[in-house]
Amino acid sequence: MSSVPERLAAALAEWRVVLGDAQVRSDPATLDAYASSTALWPARPSAILLPQNRGQVVDVVRVAARYRTALYPLSTGRNWGYGDACAVLPGQVIVDLSGMRGILEANAELGYVVIEPGVTQGQLSQFLAEHHFPYWLDCTGAGPDTSLVGNILERGFGHSPYGNRVQHVCGMEVVLADGDVVGTGYTHYPDARAARVFPYGLGPWIDGLFTQSSLGIVTSLGLWLMPQSAALSHFLCNVPSQDGVAAVVDALRPLRMDGTLRSVIHIGNDLRVLSGGMTYPRDIVTRPLPEQTRVALCQAAGIAAWTVSGALYGSTRQVAAARHALRQALAPLKLAPRFIDERQLALAGTMARLLGTTAAGRKLAARVALGRSLFNMNRGRPDGRFLAGAYWRRQGGLPPDFPAGADPARDNCGLLWLSPVLPMRGADLQAVMALAAPLYVRHGFDLFATFSMITERALGGVLTVAYDKADARESADAQACYHALFDTLMVAGYLPYRVGLQSMAALDPAGDGFWRTVRRIKVALDPHGLIAPGRYQPPSGANRQSAS
Amino acid sequence: MSSVPERLAAALAEWRVVLGDAQVRSDPATLDAYASSTALWPARPSAILLPQNRGQVVDVVRVAARYRTALYPLSTGRNWGYGDACAVLPGQVIVDLSGMRGILEANAELGYVVIEPGVTQGQLSQFLAEHHFPYWLDCTGAGPDTSLVGNILERGFGHSPYGNRVQHVCGMEVVLADGDVVGTGYTHYPDARAARVFPYGLGPWIDGLFTQSSLGIVTSLGLWLMPQSAALSHFLCNVPSQDGVAAVVDALRPLRMDGTLRSVIHIGNDLRVLSGGMTYPRDIVTRPLPEQTRVALCQAAGIAAWTVSGALYGSTRQVAAARHALRQALAPLKLAPRFIDERQLALAGTMARLLGTTAAGRKLAARVALGRSLFNMNRGRPDGRFLAGAYWRRQGGLPPDFPAGADPARDNCGLLWLSPVLPMRGADLQAVMALAAPLYVRHGFDLFATFSMITERALGGVLTVAYDKADARESADAQACYHALFDTLMVAGYLPYRVGLQSMAALDPAGDGFWRTVRRIKVALDPHGLIAPGRYQPPSGANRQSAS
Repeated sequence: MSSVPERLAAALAEWRVVLGDAQVRSDPATLDAYASSTALWPARPSAILLPQNRGQVVDVVRVAARYRTALYPLSTGRNWGYGDACAVLPGQVIVDLSGMRGILEANAELGYVVIEPGVTQGQLSQFLAEHHFPYWLDCTGAGPDTSLVGNILERGFGHSPYGNRVQHVCGMEVVLADGDVVGTGYTHYPDARAARVFPYGLGPWIDGLFTQSSLGIVTSLGLWLMPQSAALSHFLCNVPSQDGVAAVVDALRPLRMDGTLRSVIHIGNDLRVLSGGMTYPRDIVTRPLPEQTRVALCQAAGIAAWTVSGALYGSTRQVAAARHALRQALAPLKLAPRFIDERQLALAGTMARLLGTTAAGRKLAARVALGRSLFNMNRGRPDGRFLAGAYWRRQGGLPPDFPAGADPARDNCGLLWLSPVLPMRGADLQAVMALAAPLYVRHGFDLFATFSMITERALGGVLTVAYDKADARESADAQACYHALFDTLMVAGYLPYRVGLQSMAALDPAGDGFWRTVRRIKVALDPHGLIAPGRYQPPSGANRQSAS
Repeated sequence: MSSVPERLAAALAEWRVVLGDAQVRSDPATLDAYASSTALWPARPSAILLPQNRGQVVDVVRVAARYRTALYPLSTGRNWGYGDACAVLPGQVIVDLSGMRGILEANAELGYVVIEPGVTQGQLSQFLAEHHFPYWLDCTGAGPDTSLVGNILERGFGHSPYGNRVQHVCGMEVVLADGDVVGTGYTHYPDARAARVFPYGLGPWIDGLFTQSSLGIVTSLGLWLMPQSAALSHFLCNVPSQDGVAAVVDALRPLRMDGTLRSVIHIGNDLRVLSGGMTYPRDIVTRPLPEQTRVALCQAAGIAAWTVSGALYGSTRQVAAARHALRQALAPLKLAPRFIDERQLALAGTMARLLGTTAAGRKLAARVALGRSLFNMNRGRPDGRFLAGAYWRRQGGLPPDFPAGADPARDNCGLLWLSPVLPMRGADLQAVMALAAPLYVRHGFDLFATFSMITERALGGVLTVAYDKADARESADAQACYHALFDTLMVAGYLPYRVGLQSMAALDPAGDGFWRTVRRIKVALDPHGLIAPGRYQPPSGANRQSAS
């Protein structure tokens, strides 16, 4: 067969025929835009394909198979902190599915939709409101323009009782590397009546294969929606001491396990909360933030060492029962959760307006805006405000269109996320913090940490390395900090739940049977390695040190 | 290579070396015992292997690979109504894992166990009680001697908030056809701390591949346990008319969807309830039961057209809130659920003892025994009493050791189960009943039906064909009835959630992409087809008519 550039040229010519010229891009400006990243290792693609429907995706892979050109599918490419819109390796052809924005089916009686990869949180939220669907969407904090399918296929988590998103998928359609189309669950039976209400179908349940995967291109999936609840109570609990958080985890675990707390409870440290309301004070030329500044800023903003937050969903009686249980669980620790409802938030908004542009008024207004964003998110109206932390070290701070147009990659934010999973125990939270904190200090970064109760038994940690991408030295330090953290947490057994592109090769240090099996399945379904080469495909026994 | 019998003989000789003589059986009496079945198409195996640990399972498959002998793994072989301990095809070598009874890990803080395939419901229940674990086991009604792993790998359902069992698995160990050992989730990372609290791991989530599958032999899995709840309230609701049940489904759906009803609610018809308390009155020589007899028996026993039952778990306040919601939902239908607690059951027991051997006393005692079994099951203490329906047409009725030693296959019960999945809508329940009822009448059987709220959006139906295996004519009728039902429900789009061995070949009528993909994975993992040939492996485009 001919050379790589020759094959690519021939494939591009064919793609232009099947997709049309406007849906095949290889101009430098477009390629640059796709290479923009919050990370330091952007992979510049060789072309961008923009199929508009399932049939065109099949056409795309058939041409790719003929010319052996590697494809890299993405939904809307907003995988910030984990690789953005970049392929694992440079020179691949991006298959951007953001034009596939179909809500193919919507069932108000049974509470589900069938959506394509380009459907965003904002779009679905608006759709449900316009059609008066009595359901809420589970939202992530990544804002309205992010793809639901993309996040789900990375096994992302939202915040509501439907926050464990992969568990609310019912039936996928997948295009394989040879163009074969696979319906999972019951969806491959054309007359199936329960295709969107029973995920497992008959025979092997294969849906999980296509998450964190290079095995196929998902072109649609069924997604269950959360019934709107009559009552919704937010709660906040300040934990005054660093060490005090461990007992809180242990006190809340039984409530998460027994179903009293059905949503994803968040536990954030002071810097995480602080970074949601401001960027780094640039009058300080050193980093990380000096201890006394941190303490002063947090005191001024009323931020405790740790903040526990969440929402209680249900009927009025159920929410009252959950409030009672929460108070009972925290009372022995001398902690009292504050419950906040719409009425109180509205009252605070009125007060803020009365206080006007005074310092107290501005402070209260900022809090009300954050509260409003939180309330909206928990009701399925996504908000970009929670991306503020990505801008912490950005020169120029938050852009004028924040939070509406938040886009950390476009805005040249430096952002790396590490997401270790822990047993839901205070001692494990403390162990992760004890491993991470000295590395942050050594490399000069501020440790933003959240730990979320993502299952009934596990905490999902998110550790942020926010850095100034315009500063080469700081960028190099961020890279070193990331790799030190990644390696330290891996060795300690706190494995990530998902990884950025830079760590894909480090996932099979021992050459084990799991990854051998995944490789065998990959060869069976994609023998020429056309789809997403390198994505969750570690080489066997790769050195534990991640590539740097 | 040599002939099949020669290869088998050579393999048996090697298995005797690696397992020991006592763990390799091929005497006729043992082979007969394994061929006993509630179905009419038992497959007599050629040998039985009894490995006692994971290493021996690896040895077994390695020998099988060398001699190309087909293996058929089973856990305890109590897959009654769906094929019992039989392989799909005769002449296979059964790998009976019932000797692997290890509870390999038990964590009281995080609420899980790691169990081998031979661990039974009764064994785990006893283990939890003996070790004072504050958790309950989710039970099925199939009695104490059934395997948890076996049921989970068939994607069976229990009754409690943990009734959707496959969703409570966390990490599997699987032996592939070449002896490779695969740990799923995080379990393949030796130091992983969250291996039993976070099921998904890194990279493709492959656990589902090994359910309803021939892709490997599962040798252990992590299972989450349900925290004991402070309050537990059972409820029953009689629905007086056949048609009235549709409105009940529609009224309860919102409560199941919003999490008010967290356990698997059951809806059983009159014959299903009746068959739990008696066998067919043999003084009647015709079948099915004449309408007037059915009405008279149900009236005498106080059985309504449909009985809705379930249990509410939670704190006292949560259960009170759920009771309130349930009452509110049923009030517009003029239905009132009865709530029953331990105190009331104890009171009824006392009354029954006072009434002694009078007719009223015996009737009350029978009800109390059934209630006791139900309460026990919902608290994780399994009971064989719910297998009574399998004995409905058995000559001789219930055996003397019932329910303790209930074993429908050994007792020569005729039992075929069909399990269509429906959207959780009254109209779908009515549609399935309207399709099934005339077929039961035509073939002369009594239609026992239950519909269970197995997910938040789906009903799992179980239709029983109970027949007299000692009567050749009746057995042939049962077979015809089963196939007519199976084909009718498939065509109507009410697909089963699992199938008996006789229907494995009928699952890919159209030759679709899903089953092509499963076949490709099978070839990748088991190229010589050594594990469970025929199990959920339909030939492509098989005639829609199932084999008869």
